[in-house]
Amino acid sequence: MTSNQKDAQERFFAVIPAGGIGSRLWPLSRASAPKFLHDLTGNGQTLLQDTWDRLLPLAKDRIMVVTGDIHAEAVQHQLPKLDDSHVILEPSPRDSTAAIALAAAVLEKREPGVIIGSFAADHVILDQSKFEAAIREGVEVAAAGKIVTIGLRPTEPSVAFGYIRKGSKLSATACEVIEFVEKPDIALARQYVESEEYLWNAGMFIAPAKLLLDVLAKTQPGLHAGVIELAENWDSDKRDEVMKRVWPTLTKIAIDYSVAEPAAREGMVAVVPGEFEWHDVGDFAAIAELQSHGRKGHLAVLGSARVLSASSSGILVSDTGRLVALIGLDDVIVVDTGDALLVTSKEHAQRVKSLVESLRESGHSELL
Amino acid sequence: MTSNQKDAQERFFAVIPAGGIGSRLWPLSRASAPKFLHDLTGNGQTLLQDTWDRLLPLAKDRIMVVTGDIHAEAVQHQLPKLDDSHVILEPSPRDSTAAIALAAAVLEKREPGVIIGSFAADHVILDQSKFEAAIREGVEVAAAGKIVTIGLRPTEPSVAFGYIRKGSKLSATACEVIEFVEKPDIALARQYVESEEYLWNAGMFIAPAKLLLDVLAKTQPGLHAGVIELAENWDSDKRDEVMKRVWPTLTKIAIDYSVAEPAAREGMVAVVPGEFEWHDVGDFAAIAELQSHGRKGHLAVLGSARVLSASSSGILVSDTGRLVALIGLDDVIVVDTGDALLVTSKEHAQRVKSLVESLRESGHSELL
Repeated sequence: MTSNQKDAQERFFAVIPAGGIGSRLWPLSRASAPKFLHDLTGNGQTLLQDTWDRLLPLAKDRIMVVTGDIHAEAVQHQLPKLDDSHVILEPSPRDSTAAIALAAAVLEKREPGVIIGSFAADHVILDQSKFEAAIREGVEVAAAGKIVTIGLRPTEPSVAFGYIRKGSKLSATACEVIEFVEKPDIALARQYVESEEYLWNAGMFIAPAKLLLDVLAKTQPGLHAGVIELAENWDSDKRDEVMKRVWPTLTKIAIDYSVAEPAAREGMVAVVPGEFEWHDVGDFAAIAELQSHGRKGHLAVLGSARVLSASSSGILVSDTGRLVALIGLDDVIVVDTGDALLVTSKEHAQRVKSLVESLRESGHSELL
Repeated sequence: MTSNQKDAQERFFAVIPAGGIGSRLWPLSRASAPKFLHDLTGNGQTLLQDTWDRLLPLAKDRIMVVTGDIHAEAVQHQLPKLDDSHVILEPSPRDSTAAIALAAAVLEKREPGVIIGSFAADHVILDQSKFEAAIREGVEVAAAGKIVTIGLRPTEPSVAFGYIRKGSKLSATACEVIEFVEKPDIALARQYVESEEYLWNAGMFIAPAKLLLDVLAKTQPGLHAGVIELAENWDSDKRDEVMKRVWPTLTKIAIDYSVAEPAAREGMVAVVPGEFEWHDVGDFAAIAELQSHGRKGHLAVLGSARVLSASSSGILVSDTGRLVALIGLDDVIVVDTGDALLVTSKEHAQRVKSLVESLRESGHSELL
């Protein structure tokens, strides 16, 4: 029996690309301590630890983390059971294709026939059993020769996510993917939701590593050649030399564009609907919503803040231990860190990103 | 020629009672560093220094400061030209009568016939020449045997101040005072302003020290006896012993109740209208107004804050040097100190006082 013939679930290997600063969560999230290294749910675990725990029942110790080399220590500290051989450290960020394709190539070389699943390190998923069911189904569909994406049933016409247009059924739950569409405007988002043909793209996908690499070989041959050369030398003493030479040459491109969309056009992508609650906690307003569970007038508190609040709602995040007094503020966002303080409102939560950009432009990189 | 016959202006001695925490200005203003020790106008001087400078042309070096003994060092530091013999240090706060009457008694003993003027250490006055004119006029009227208060023409029906009801004219500008009235409700305040019979009570008054003490002898004989005993021993080696024994026994009462109101009922009080701009900067909303000079949408900044503001107005006070980022907040109040952060809005500025009270009740005295 070759590994290709092994049970699909046994061939599954989870990959966690742990990158991205999460600049909408500044000043909590920094280049040096990005979103996934923080506890944004108040459950005492970071988003990365939550992601690990969520994948453990599906993948056991078969979990690989791809992260920036400056986060190596923090990741090892937060995930003490993570095997050294399951860590890929990026000397510099080169977008999601390089990260995931290198993981795919290294794993395929070690274990031909491996089925990888890619799961962002900084999402919140609330129903573990439904998550596991969706992933197991996705692995089966992937094993049949598909790139599988997990699609979430829209609960509202969000303009914050890309959408997946589903086609004919492939199984009891899985469907073909007709196309991926970019973040729509609100009118289009309403049409998508009403049509019931569209699902939110949560950026999770599952595929045989070889299939993913084969698609990449056609769409980005140079990038493909680079990750293959890296994988060939990964488990040898040449790794550092090849990494130093090849990594900086890899094309920066999101895997959506290099693999998912081209493969969808070839009819190679399937979607499995996820029935679980999913949050990308992209900004402080989203965290406040998540923390407040729909309670109106609730003030969510994250971190070590001592709070004295009168007639205030929204969210307070603090890691300074200072007393924070809030009076008469609705939907406020206060983020109190050692060297920077942010005060805004839920309405303006998305604008934090442009503020961070203006900080960068004005040379305050020590605060980013 | 006795001192009583000297020119009235030469007999003038300014007294600055520098007390009161200013709890509506927490967390900037603290028991250990109250309002008058801060620069609340952004002019580079504290309110106490501004008060000193304002009185200097009127009183030269004849300025006495009455303050808590815990502020002795800060006051001497801020007012290097303040003579040691012109400082009264209170071992504990015993309200304004004890403070001012002791100053009056000490000065009267040293210099019979002295005319004292009492000026809060924490007010903002913007027209120096009009201030000087009012005080000089007040000294003349006082020399004729009156307790003189300075009344401000109301610019709006404020409910934050007491009012002075004026009677018949005593001179070109001075009038008799019929009565002092407490802070009114808004309807009554409107009536007061429309009638043109009322002036704001800014808490400044001028009187022959002996006249003030004589009134006190009738209304508060025990308190009067106490300050006289203290004054008799003040410039002797018994000062500390007498202070230790007598001071804690002095009745705590505001000078409005012990002297001003009873004297007004006896027809002994006159008011001189002040034509200058006066602010008691009682809360952060008042400071924001003062700083913004009526400009709508202006964000006032006090202290060493590095600010990044987008679409925000109100006031930011910071002494931490941290970056403070504000997005999309109207009329916000942010006060950033080392151990406490306040965020509220101008609308709720007065509520800071009750927050401080709840801090006291909950045992956070280290933050007060």
